[in-house]
Amino acid sequence: MKHFIFLLVSLFLLGGAHAQTITSPDKNLILKFELTSAGRPSYQLTYKNKPVVKPSLLGIEVANGPSFVEGFTISNSETTTVNDSWEPVYGEQKTIKNNYTELVVTLTQKAQKDRFIKIRFRLFNDGLGFRYEFPTQNGLTYFIIKEEQTEVNLAGDHKIFWMPGDYDTNEYPYTTSKFSEIPSLQKKATIQITAQQPIAAPSVQTPAMLKSADGLYINLHEAALINYPALQYEVDAKNLKLKSHLVPDAIGNKGYMQTPAQSPWRTIIVSDKATDILASKTILNLNTPTEYKDVSWIKPMKYMGVWWEYFVGKSSWAYSTATNVKLTDDFSTFKPNGRHGATTENVKRYIDFASEHGIEGLLVEGWNIGWEDWIGNWKEDVFDFVTPYPDFNVKGLYAYAKAKNVKLIMHHETSGAATNYERHLDRAFEFMNENGYPAVKTGYVGSIIPRGEHHDGQMMVNHYIHVAKRAADYKIMVNSHEAVRPTGLHRTYPNWFAQESARGTEFEAMGGLAPEHSTILPFTRMMGGPMDYTPGIFQTELSKNGFGHNGRVNTTLVKQLAYYVTMYSPLQMAADLPENYAKYPDAFQFIKDVALDWDDTYVLEAEPGDYVTTARKAKGKNEWYIGGITDENPRTATVNFSFLPKGKKYIATLYADGPQASYDKNPQSYTIRKVLVTSKSVLKQGLASSGGVAISVKEGSKDEMKGLKNL
Amino acid sequence: MKHFIFLLVSLFLLGGAHAQTITSPDKNLILKFELTSAGRPSYQLTYKNKPVVKPSLLGIEVANGPSFVEGFTISNSETTTVNDSWEPVYGEQKTIKNNYTELVVTLTQKAQKDRFIKIRFRLFNDGLGFRYEFPTQNGLTYFIIKEEQTEVNLAGDHKIFWMPGDYDTNEYPYTTSKFSEIPSLQKKATIQITAQQPIAAPSVQTPAMLKSADGLYINLHEAALINYPALQYEVDAKNLKLKSHLVPDAIGNKGYMQTPAQSPWRTIIVSDKATDILASKTILNLNTPTEYKDVSWIKPMKYMGVWWEYFVGKSSWAYSTATNVKLTDDFSTFKPNGRHGATTENVKRYIDFASEHGIEGLLVEGWNIGWEDWIGNWKEDVFDFVTPYPDFNVKGLYAYAKAKNVKLIMHHETSGAATNYERHLDRAFEFMNENGYPAVKTGYVGSIIPRGEHHDGQMMVNHYIHVAKRAADYKIMVNSHEAVRPTGLHRTYPNWFAQESARGTEFEAMGGLAPEHSTILPFTRMMGGPMDYTPGIFQTELSKNGFGHNGRVNTTLVKQLAYYVTMYSPLQMAADLPENYAKYPDAFQFIKDVALDWDDTYVLEAEPGDYVTTARKAKGKNEWYIGGITDENPRTATVNFSFLPKGKKYIATLYADGPQASYDKNPQSYTIRKVLVTSKSVLKQGLASSGGVAISVKEGSKDEMKGLKNL
Repeated sequence: MKHFIFLLVSLFLLGGAHAQTITSPDKNLILKFELTSAGRPSYQLTYKNKPVVKPSLLGIEVANGPSFVEGFTISNSETTTVNDSWEPVYGEQKTIKNNYTELVVTLTQKAQKDRFIKIRFRLFNDGLGFRYEFPTQNGLTYFIIKEEQTEVNLAGDHKIFWMPGDYDTNEYPYTTSKFSEIPSLQKKATIQITAQQPIAAPSVQTPAMLKSADGLYINLHEAALINYPALQYEVDAKNLKLKSHLVPDAIGNKGYMQTPAQSPWRTIIVSDKATDILASKTILNLNTPTEYKDVSWIKPMKYMGVWWEYFVGKSSWAYSTATNVKLTDDFSTFKPNGRHGATTENVKRYIDFASEHGIEGLLVEGWNIGWEDWIGNWKEDVFDFVTPYPDFNVKGLYAYAKAKNVKLIMHHETSGAATNYERHLDRAFEFMNENGYPAVKTGYVGSIIPRGEHHDGQMMVNHYIHVAKRAADYKIMVNSHEAVRPTGLHRTYPNWFAQESARGTEFEAMGGLAPEHSTILPFTRMMGGPMDYTPGIFQTELSKNGFGHNGRVNTTLVKQLAYYVTMYSPLQMAADLPENYAKYPDAFQFIKDVALDWDDTYVLEAEPGDYVTTARKAKGKNEWYIGGITDENPRTATVNFSFLPKGKKYIATLYADGPQASYDKNPQSYTIRKVLVTSKSVLKQGLASSGGVAISVKEGSKDEMKGLKNL
Repeated sequence: MKHFIFLLVSLFLLGGAHAQTITSPDKNLILKFELTSAGRPSYQLTYKNKPVVKPSLLGIEVANGPSFVEGFTISNSETTTVNDSWEPVYGEQKTIKNNYTELVVTLTQKAQKDRFIKIRFRLFNDGLGFRYEFPTQNGLTYFIIKEEQTEVNLAGDHKIFWMPGDYDTNEYPYTTSKFSEIPSLQKKATIQITAQQPIAAPSVQTPAMLKSADGLYINLHEAALINYPALQYEVDAKNLKLKSHLVPDAIGNKGYMQTPAQSPWRTIIVSDKATDILASKTILNLNTPTEYKDVSWIKPMKYMGVWWEYFVGKSSWAYSTATNVKLTDDFSTFKPNGRHGATTENVKRYIDFASEHGIEGLLVEGWNIGWEDWIGNWKEDVFDFVTPYPDFNVKGLYAYAKAKNVKLIMHHETSGAATNYERHLDRAFEFMNENGYPAVKTGYVGSIIPRGEHHDGQMMVNHYIHVAKRAADYKIMVNSHEAVRPTGLHRTYPNWFAQESARGTEFEAMGGLAPEHSTILPFTRMMGGPMDYTPGIFQTELSKNGFGHNGRVNTTLVKQLAYYVTMYSPLQMAADLPENYAKYPDAFQFIKDVALDWDDTYVLEAEPGDYVTTARKAKGKNEWYIGGITDENPRTATVNFSFLPKGKKYIATLYADGPQASYDKNPQSYTIRKVLVTSKSVLKQGLASSGGVAISVKEGSKDEMKGLKNL
């Protein structure tokens, strides 16, 4: 399958040349690299002759030695073209094409005894990645990064979908504005979040999504964030400039480097079609293949959870009425609060339901001692990850779940105490192996310990990867919440198969999400990797659950179904209470049916902040699933079935918003109908306000097709 | 064996009383506690009517709430007398007497909604311990300590043996001066040490030893340092005042507390006899008994090491010529430097020697990959603690050592990267279990990671204890170097059986130790617990080793023998090269003979900075060992054998400095003679300049005693 074209043009330039230019394989993108008169590296990028990035400086400021900022000459440059493909362990496509032109410039500082770095550019048809490389050489082994000096000079005052820069949280809502408006909106955008450390200067996090007045879609992010702090950008509104701002450590340094070393890739995905942005695999391509020898145990998974009931007020994570507990306490002596969710009996109820409906996994939160005062105290010994509450029978539930073909998913909330988690890690994973847990949801709610470190700093970046690698030793899959946002590392560490790392469904129960939020996520957070968005809330009017919560999930029921397609993840939750699914078995059928792994993906139509319609072919099956969503505005989605094999009829089951549906007035109105479709079919489907459409397409027997109308 | 007298006098004082007084069981010490007019706690201490501590304030400053400093009333006070005894797992005495008068005052802050703390004083015959207690109560669970406000107002400008306050090192030499001279000597005393963070203000570390003009010996330290930063004292020379200064964390906070909580005990050991200071068991008594259920595997140990040869220039820890290595490197591809010490062959040579001479343990440093650039780079992934260098055969050496009845001692140098060590801890200990290592020497040379934390801060204090407890899970004994100095925790965690935590023998090869150093250590560092001083250097003129080192160990050979008695430790090293012991088999006999565990200890004579003479009875045997040392001044030691059972003759083997011996001119001149002694014998023995005397006393048969003269 792999075809590999390797073309090396090595140009040894002895001082004279100051500029290099490469074009993307399809010639649409042109990257120009040059040195300024002060010997500062500079790059610019155009797309179909439109400026994407105007000349912008590059460099690395060093804390404990001379910086890699100026006084450079180009001592070498090499251009390469790569065109091959590879197969991910799971994903949106069975085969991913990897086609780019590469330029590597070697930059030497004569005034620093010929110390040199390299900057490596990879220009794909849909964007650019570049990184700094620090080869081993005399006089350069260990150094400390004070700041990265990467600039992105925009060609106009673009529209931008952004959240404010912050060292500790990526759970802000998105703000849509002109780039120049960011400083004036920064304060408003910085809402209160548990554990946050906003950057004082106007700034944005990546992924950030921009759209130019002349119709270019530009996405800024990074790829392969390893042993380095996360990238954020300070905003110079006046000069339409973004400037890198790395997340610091406890004493203000940014990164501790040992040669050979490199920065993550800085990515600029660009197209004149919004759908190309969503279809881009550039970030994945910039990550390295996994080194895991055996990946057969890594499998996509659908799951339910003893989870949403905590958010709607039905029960509690904590077992007792105590308000001040220690891991050394005997919790069996505590007074139960009568509201504990993770009881053996309640978990059995979930197991029964999941088993009946073929849902493989069941997450149980609140099973382990320590929840009485787990949050807000910067406490280190919060959990030990192996001691259940007195009313949670680990061995018994393992046996019960196994008999019913259900696998329990472990929960490791750390409360931000990474040191405590690492102390317990091997034992916690051994405990999981002993008790049949194939996957763990990790959580980092709270200020980080080591105190002064941040969720997105180099130390925590290394922590998350350490957890993923250590988990792999035990054949455990990891779904992290509140970790640094993903950068395509699920290619390299495929058992780290999902993350939250954004404002997810839980916030629907904490004030609600804007209807447009889920149309922005694919263009921002999800550019880095799969999101455990935890969709599937059928009872969107939370008061109807009867537990005193009067909030509302700001979608229609059908939009929740569509999420299983619009939001790619190999891990998908059916997040609502079993009793709510029991009320809508016909709609629940879509969640039961929808695939988790795909042969191919077709982004049919998309506009950030407005709508997304995506179709996907189930891996190894002649089944397709389509999801379409809209923001607060009703719209007509267009589903062109041309992705279907030609000349054959299929049965499409359409889950649509009811004619009078709307997220705020009539969210649970839906229709389900079956029709016949071919590759020539085109569906025009009305979506309600914050509504959606979900479609399954399957082969059918003559009997099954009998009586069905053509679309 | 235990006799326990419990006497409770509970005084409920409703506001009126402001002062409480208790006396030590022998009435010599009197503690007075009172509140100032501002409701500030204050204490004072006298010994035989001489002031030891003049009225001094107490309090705790809180970072995130009102402080526990003033506005107190005494809402309760209780006095108790305890007189019992206990048996340590190992120690200087088989049975330790625990006899004190206790005063607990409950202090309430009416202005803070009746928030209260307790201060607990325990007054022994040889000193005072007191601590702050924070009981669980409404409105007080979690709080952060900004600073402790404990004062010690001295009664005069005492002589003091001190080292400067520092967050990261206790390896300074001691300075002897008047208390008022500390500020002017601070800079000179703060010599350069790998990884140091001196306190800016004039300050001293504990243990600090003072002597008053009127003959009182006063020792300041702390006991049971758990979940709290180490105590240091700022020096107010003008007012003769010491004021507590706790070691901060990365962001400047001192301690993170959760009720019920308490500070460590602040100790003031006092007597008019210097020998009483050394005999004090107050610090041990203030620690809690071990919670380990099985301590049968914890055993004193004598050992040699592939260690001193690194210091004298014979060989290196590192295996290769590389200067920039990563744990992922294949070290077998590196060019050997030809000087690696921990080779299979060399280790076998040590095993042979240790086996021949009945030395049970053998430490091997430099066995694991990573030593090429382990120091000075603030590097996290320095060692993995399980991967040997290519020329070190773990399995083969385990078998070889086992066949020869020798146990290898593991070495875990962390380079200060505590996070990295904790990540590997379980696996490292499993590796030790698999390969027959019963004990580990840990090391913390370098700036701490998490960066910004300090060797002596709360986080690292917890780390050392975590390592000890985790090691206990694997039945592993721990000997820590560069950890926070001990505070009697070997009672609670008896497998943490030795520490360096001071300037030890290694510094004899790095500029040398002052001859008086080892006469100060028992009064300072060793007040907290056993020291792995690594004595036994016979070839004190290092040039004679022939490896280009021209330094000198500043003692006579016999003083090195005496250390095995004057410096108590259940872990004792015979630190010199085997070839040097082979040259002096008669002197080496003392090291082979000397016991490690004791039924009783008799401090015969002592003066800090001048001399120490100590006798001990071997546990369960009619054998006694005596060691006497002096500083740079020759002296005549007096050994009164009255500790021997009456009416019986024993054979004493006397190892003495030769008549012309001196540490700097003639260090290896010694005599050995056997004489008969009884409980009535008194030896007057001349000690050379920085010399010593070592004596073994055993029962002898008539044949053995024949021809021996009475002393």
